[in-house]
Amino acid sequence: MSNLSPQQLLNALEWRYATKVFDPAKKIPADIWHALEQALVLTPTSYGMQPYQFLVVQDAAKRAALLPHSWNQKQVVDCSHFVVFTARTEMTEADVAKFIQRTSEVRDILLEKLNFNRDMILSDVVKGPRGKTAHEWAARQCYIALGNLMTSAAVLGVDACPMEGINPLEYDQVLGLNGSGFKTVVACALGYRAAADKYASLPKVRFETKDLVRVI
Amino acid sequence: MSNLSPQQLLNALEWRYATKVFDPAKKIPADIWHALEQALVLTPTSYGMQPYQFLVVQDAAKRAALLPHSWNQKQVVDCSHFVVFTARTEMTEADVAKFIQRTSEVRDILLEKLNFNRDMILSDVVKGPRGKTAHEWAARQCYIALGNLMTSAAVLGVDACPMEGINPLEYDQVLGLNGSGFKTVVACALGYRAAADKYASLPKVRFETKDLVRVI
Repeated sequence: MSNLSPQQLLNALEWRYATKVFDPAKKIPADIWHALEQALVLTPTSYGMQPYQFLVVQDAAKRAALLPHSWNQKQVVDCSHFVVFTARTEMTEADVAKFIQRTSEVRDILLEKLNFNRDMILSDVVKGPRGKTAHEWAARQCYIALGNLMTSAAVLGVDACPMEGINPLEYDQVLGLNGSGFKTVVACALGYRAAADKYASLPKVRFETKDLVRVI
Repeated sequence: MSNLSPQQLLNALEWRYATKVFDPAKKIPADIWHALEQALVLTPTSYGMQPYQFLVVQDAAKRAALLPHSWNQKQVVDCSHFVVFTARTEMTEADVAKFIQRTSEVRDILLEKLNFNRDMILSDVVKGPRGKTAHEWAARQCYIALGNLMTSAAVLGVDACPMEGINPLEYDQVLGLNGSGFKTVVACALGYRAAADKYASLPKVRFETKDLVRVI
């Protein structure tokens, strides 16, 4: 496997920033977008349950409709690919059954050999502690995907802007999510920075390492 | 900047898996750990507020004390570096002031020129919608860091195991967090897989792309 050197990784993470102005003419090439889409699919999640769906909004009219529900941040309409992270509103026995079924297929294991796994997951994410806050638990998994996507984009030289500054309820309405079993959590615009984006050259504001990392 | 090719990124993400057995003899070299620590520091967060602290638990006795509160998953004691993600329990005016102060220093901007930013953040994460669920908001930022850390580790060839299967309240007690302003959210073990870990060769279970990604 070809890895990055530690310095190459840090260069990529220093290079990235929350892009404020995208160049609307620059689109992410198909092979690079494919890798980012697969990075989303490969995101690790709790129990591997993947309690989310990623909406890639490419329709210009839909993007325009989302703009006023995004504090009018132009990244929504100017970026190459706009991803809305949606999380399950609740977790049901059927969701667990679907995951166990998929495990059985992919790993070629008899379904009945997965009863223990199924019961363990059921007793937590449906009937147990995580079941009580299932949407929030699912939302947190979306944030793993968001972190993964932003770092994946950075190491491929693609710009990104994470967007919590959206109105999730209004997004749900525009995207027709009501009744779908999924709710909007957060979004991410991807593409290439415009030469005019003055934020690209501002020093990154982070607390000192000693304030963020404590070795014990 | 030296980027990865799309295929190199996918190779790294396919190579990674939730490592069940770490080789206790293999430690992450200092230069690689430094990059992973800085990856944590560089994590993007909402408003850039970084409402978290990362505890790197290297003391063997502390790790042993955490083990029974981690479903006895041996990764806690066998990994090279064990990171506990803690999020602020609430957000205060002082937290915002500290961030604005840091912005002023790093970007060399007069404090009074940042009044608008300060008031906007205050009206959301302290007095507004995010203030009402400040810990949960902060916890979500931890999950961005978790996603970033796992992908960063993968592209450096370091193994990782994300761990939601811990008891946060008992972690807080062992780690002396009560009254610190931070609470345990999630953990991640890092190091190198043992040759004997049979999970390394199992096919990855993911739903089909069409079930996870919807283009609209």
